[in-house]
Order: sequence, then C-alpha cells, then structure tokens
Amino acid sequence: MTGRLEFWFELGSNYSYLSMMRIEELARQYAVHIDWHPFLLGPIFKSFGWETSPFVLQKEKGNYMWHDIARQCRKHGLPWTRPTTFPRPTLLPMRVAIWAQSEPWLAAFCRRVMTMNFAEDRDVHTEEAIRPVLEELGLNASGVLDAAQSIQNKERLRNQTERARTLGIFGAPTFIVNGSMYWGNDRLEDAVLDAAGKTNGS
Amino acid sequence: MTGRLEFWFELGSNYSYLSMMRIEELARQYAVHIDWHPFLLGPIFKSFGWETSPFVLQKEKGNYMWHDIARQCRKHGLPWTRPTTFPRPTLLPMRVAIWAQSEPWLAAFCRRVMTMNFAEDRDVHTEEAIRPVLEELGLNASGVLDAAQSIQNKERLRNQTERARTLGIFGAPTFIVNGSMYWGNDRLEDAVLDAAGKTNGS
Repeated sequence: MTGRLEFWFELGSNYSYLSMMRIEELARQYAVHIDWHPFLLGPIFKSFGWETSPFVLQKEKGNYMWHDIARQCRKHGLPWTRPTTFPRPTLLPMRVAIWAQSEPWLAAFCRRVMTMNFAEDRDVHTEEAIRPVLEELGLNASGVLDAAQSIQNKERLRNQTERARTLGIFGAPTFIVNGSMYWGNDRLEDAVLDAAGKTNGS
Repeated sequence: MTGRLEFWFELGSNYSYLSMMRIEELARQYAVHIDWHPFLLGPIFKSFGWETSPFVLQKEKGNYMWHDIARQCRKHGLPWTRPTTFPRPTLLPMRVAIWAQSEPWLAAFCRRVMTMNFAEDRDVHTEEAIRPVLEELGLNASGVLDAAQSIQNKERLRNQTERARTLGIFGAPTFIVNGSMYWGNDRLEDAVLDAAGKTNGS
C-alpha cells in the first residue's frame, strides 16, 4: 500500500514555493502519493481578523522572513528573487489549479507559476500571464481559462478554502498525513517520512 | 578561530526547550562557542500589542503547536509533558539565568528548569522551586537568589530584553551568527553550521 500525503498550498505563499519545488522528488524517493490541495490563504487570514499576510502585518517577522527565505532557497539550490509585490494576487492561477487538481499537468503548472512569482518577480494574476504557461504545457489555454473562471469552479475553490479552515489549517504549506497535520516547509521531510511509514508518525 | 553563536532563549518558551536540550552537543560537535542570552519574551510580545503568547492568542496555531512539539520531542528523544499552565511565569529563573550568563553552571541550570517546566509539568517561578535546583548544582542558593533579585540584576534582564527588541528579535529561540539571525529550533542546525563556517552563511 502506497502512503498518501495531502499537500495544501497557495501559489502566493513563499514557503509553499520551497515545498512545491521539492515535494515531487521527495515523494518519488519514498513512493508516497501526493494529493494536491490548492486553497486560498486570504480568507483564512481574514477569519483571524487579518487583512493581509502576517509577514506584512508583523514587521519584525516579515524582515526576518525575507532573509530566511533567501537563505533557504540557497540551501536547496532554488532560484530566488524577492517579489516587488507581496503578497501577489493569485486568484486566477489558483482557480486554474483547483480546476486541474487531478490533472497530470497540475504540478508543472504550479511550479511554473511559482517560478514566475518568486524567481522572476512577475505578476501571475492576469490572463496574459497565465495563457502562455498553459500553452507551453500543450493545453487549450482558452478552454482551461474559461473552465477555471466558471461559476462552478469559483465555488469549488471557495469550498476547498472553507474545508481548509474547518480542518484548522492556518498557513501554507500544510501537509496532512492520516489526519495528522504538519505545517511549514520545515516539516516536509517529516510529513513524507510519516506517509511512507518510516516514523512512528503522530 | 572558533565560531561563535548567540543563543537567545526564554525558559518559558517550549521551542527554546528543544534547542536548550540539543545545542550543547551540536556546538561541541562543530567546535562552536555558545554565547548565552536569556531574555524575556513577554515584553517583546507586549511591544507587538499582544498580552500573551501568540500560541494562546491564535487558537488554531496553538492547537497545532501542542501536537508539533510532542512530535518533535519524540523525534529528538526528549521527554515531554504538556504543561498545565502555559505560558508559565519564569521571571525568577530568568533573573538567575541572566545573573549567571557567563557561569559554567548556567546551561545545567537552564536544562533543569526547562525539564521541570516541559517534562515534569512543575511551576518554576518560586524560590521553593528554584532553591533545590541551585543546591543540586552545589551553589549557595540563598546567595544566588539574593543576587538574582537585586535591583541591578533586574535592570540587567530588562536591558537584555530591550537589546533583543532592538535587534529585531520577535520570538524564541533565536540564534545570531555574525549578525545574521536564525529563528526557531528548526534553524538550530543551520545556525551551528554557519558559525562553524560550514555554509556560505547568510
């Protein structure tokens, strides 16, 4: 039996970027199946009474975070450019992600969007930004963009976000293994090992 | 030349407990000198407008934290009992710690107090609680307690805490290596490696 790991992420979250770029290799190494769970952080933060990212609201932690994330990217050999806009609006690519939740191209799409956001300092919320990404993946970009912006799919992303809130998810990335929660890129290895049955878990 | 690492900690901080129990062995392994910096978290949190720990203020993160810390203790082979009082008042042992900042018995004292707090679920803020700890270390307990509670020493802890705030420290444990900050027990290894010159640092 293959272990499974739920990966809850948001394309505007910088620590989700670190996990997005590392998770597939780790999952492959330990034969763990990834269930992809894009969700919106904004409404979660709003439910705490916050109008934006805690990294913006709490200046000291925010200052540290920019230092830490650059160092972590160096450690993991990942490209990094501090985004001139943070947090970047990600609603459109998040809608694409939830629509493509079970598609084989989802991970490649997310890696590309995150690379644009966190390595190339490019906006990702417009059709102009997302269309070429879909085309590079060999997809019918207009078809995907229409489906992603359908009423049903918008509702799907809202429901997924509400489910995150109900599960007690308060940040991203979050990993869930057999109902047990791991928060933050720093717990990715622990979560994968748990899913692979290599620890006594949680 | 030996590398140096500043260890900023608070005896009431559960993630400081994890680092306190691990830092000496790691520092020995990499021939790194530890500069001990006890400071009070309470005034730091107050400076952010918080009346208590963010783990208490933010229920979802708090719930997760209790799960995470138990799992981390298991991972590192450390005893753990969830404290029935959190955060526990630590002013008296913190005053002892700052007074003993350069004493060879400081680390043993801190380990013992943290074990009482986080493994034995015992209060640590009274003279009755701290006296036997000092006696077990072969010290003149009354002498130390008097010195720790002198006006000058209370002022010293206030100054140390103010210095932490000025440095941008927003939580504990925090490690500083050549002016570069590492926050959280999850960064202990990185900080020690940086101090030992084993990474390109920060």
